[in-house]
Amino acid sequence: MVNRKILLASRPKGMPDESNFEVIETTVPELQEGEVLIKTLYLSVDPYMRGRMSAAKSYAKPYEVGEPFLGGMVGKVVESKNSRFQAGQFVEGRLEWAEYNVSDGSTIRKVNPELAPVSTALHVLGMPGLTAYFGLIYIGEPKEGETVVVSGASGAVGTIVGQIAKLKGCRVVGIAGGDDKCSYLTEELGFDAAINYKTTDNLRKSLKEACPNGVDVYFDNVGGPVSDAVMSLINFQSRTIICGQISQYNLEKPELGPRVAGQLLTTSSLMKGFIVSDYAEHNKEGLTQLSQWVREGKIQYRENVVEGFENTVDAFLGLFRGDNIGKQLVKIAEE
Amino acid sequence: MVNRKILLASRPKGMPDESNFEVIETTVPELQEGEVLIKTLYLSVDPYMRGRMSAAKSYAKPYEVGEPFLGGMVGKVVESKNSRFQAGQFVEGRLEWAEYNVSDGSTIRKVNPELAPVSTALHVLGMPGLTAYFGLIYIGEPKEGETVVVSGASGAVGTIVGQIAKLKGCRVVGIAGGDDKCSYLTEELGFDAAINYKTTDNLRKSLKEACPNGVDVYFDNVGGPVSDAVMSLINFQSRTIICGQISQYNLEKPELGPRVAGQLLTTSSLMKGFIVSDYAEHNKEGLTQLSQWVREGKIQYRENVVEGFENTVDAFLGLFRGDNIGKQLVKIAEE
Repeated sequence: MVNRKILLASRPKGMPDESNFEVIETTVPELQEGEVLIKTLYLSVDPYMRGRMSAAKSYAKPYEVGEPFLGGMVGKVVESKNSRFQAGQFVEGRLEWAEYNVSDGSTIRKVNPELAPVSTALHVLGMPGLTAYFGLIYIGEPKEGETVVVSGASGAVGTIVGQIAKLKGCRVVGIAGGDDKCSYLTEELGFDAAINYKTTDNLRKSLKEACPNGVDVYFDNVGGPVSDAVMSLINFQSRTIICGQISQYNLEKPELGPRVAGQLLTTSSLMKGFIVSDYAEHNKEGLTQLSQWVREGKIQYRENVVEGFENTVDAFLGLFRGDNIGKQLVKIAEE
Repeated sequence: MVNRKILLASRPKGMPDESNFEVIETTVPELQEGEVLIKTLYLSVDPYMRGRMSAAKSYAKPYEVGEPFLGGMVGKVVESKNSRFQAGQFVEGRLEWAEYNVSDGSTIRKVNPELAPVSTALHVLGMPGLTAYFGLIYIGEPKEGETVVVSGASGAVGTIVGQIAKLKGCRVVGIAGGDDKCSYLTEELGFDAAINYKTTDNLRKSLKEACPNGVDVYFDNVGGPVSDAVMSLINFQSRTIICGQISQYNLEKPELGPRVAGQLLTTSSLMKGFIVSDYAEHNKEGLTQLSQWVREGKIQYRENVVEGFENTVDAFLGLFRGDNIGKQLVKIAEE
């Protein structure tokens, strides 16, 4: 059986493009004892994957040139020689960008299609949802009445951060790149205000108006000048959560910026980076809480679905063009 | 009785100089019921006071032009109309830069001269000691075998930070501006290594050699390029304590630097500013622990004493020239 895979063809300098990727055709190998054959239904494209395309040391091991991309995937078990899995079951895991994957079962978990659409295992009930939950709750520690600012607010993580902050009784201000994104945040997700950083004359001034009591918690997905504006407004004992820095990932040279240490000093403030796996011991708690909120209709989500394996790379590149509202997915096959 | 005081004459632009200060002569007022008259023995000059000379918002309220400087002081009670204090007792408090102060008793605490020399209430058994203790213990959370780097290592706070870190079983590397300072750290205080940032060709390379296992805890008193070098070597889940930014206080314009958010992100690291009063509820614990270590000879200290009220301003300015090893004090009168 033919199996297409996407490899890292070369490491990008600056913004990646199609030339950094290669699609190859292989065949699905014979299953060995203990293995599971999975047909891909949805592939997840996520900003952090840009980091893995570089050789630089980071929390996530770099992809190797000539090797397949690894990413979040939801699929259906086609055949199983592993007693824990049966044909017809849905699973989620970090596997190859391919139409089929073979797993020994250690890298996948079952997904219950009765709880929610299986694709949610790639966002609100998966890595991005847990990322939002852990960062906001464990680092941000938002208190009722505080002001929470979220950058990259209309993305898979930002949309959930803002909604959790509202559930905690906070004033929530989103920063996003588009009027359609901002309307979505305020009109559908209940954000108190949203600022289109691409069209505002003066982001700091817009933020100051939207945050009359200053900023207590800043959940940062983007970095760069957007963060400079937010950091200039942080309150005493504020908490800044560094979740992503998408504005910086494609720079050929690191850019300079205002030093934040002085601002952290004079406000007794905290800044903390993290990766979702730092809080792995709380995975069950996080998923239980998120599932409950989704079931109760307290957390909404939106999927931006591109169809077809051949469009995977373009969907990934679209993250850096700001194409998506909500979670960007690639649908590979029907359930 | 004549009383000399030092006022803020004007706000400095960049490095302060003598013209920003004015010495005036007044007379000591008649004591009112509940008040205490204190003769100054030692004045403390501290880098944070530079911040208070500016009008910028900070954790410490700015000094007003035309008003006296306030700072740490150890003195002797000359006369008391407050039942809590008696003539002859030693006290410490944040009072005016003056030869005599009148206090209502709320801003002073008694100092026991039998525990240690009374001047230590201005450093190892006072604000700088507590600053070192709280920042390192409560934010840095050093674990045995970890590497702790301290900048401004030979100052009042840095010397104590390094010695506490040694007591916690860490490898301790100090950064200071002078070979005499570095020798003091390694030969007298037990630091594992010390780097003279003024003479090294390549601070990052020197640090890398001194920290073969990377940096787990960075106690930052200086900021700027010294911190850039340290931050490039932080480990996974490192903790950076922002205690001071002396390299930045006298800049006329804030300088740009490498953005730290990306580094914090890819290492899941923390950076936290603080002020000693954030941990006021732990003051007793901190002073008890520090006193014990001093009594047991586990923490050494050095005082850099300038004599004479008229030399106070120059001693303060000397902090920014790097004149001092250990705590800079001005001796105003004999005990």
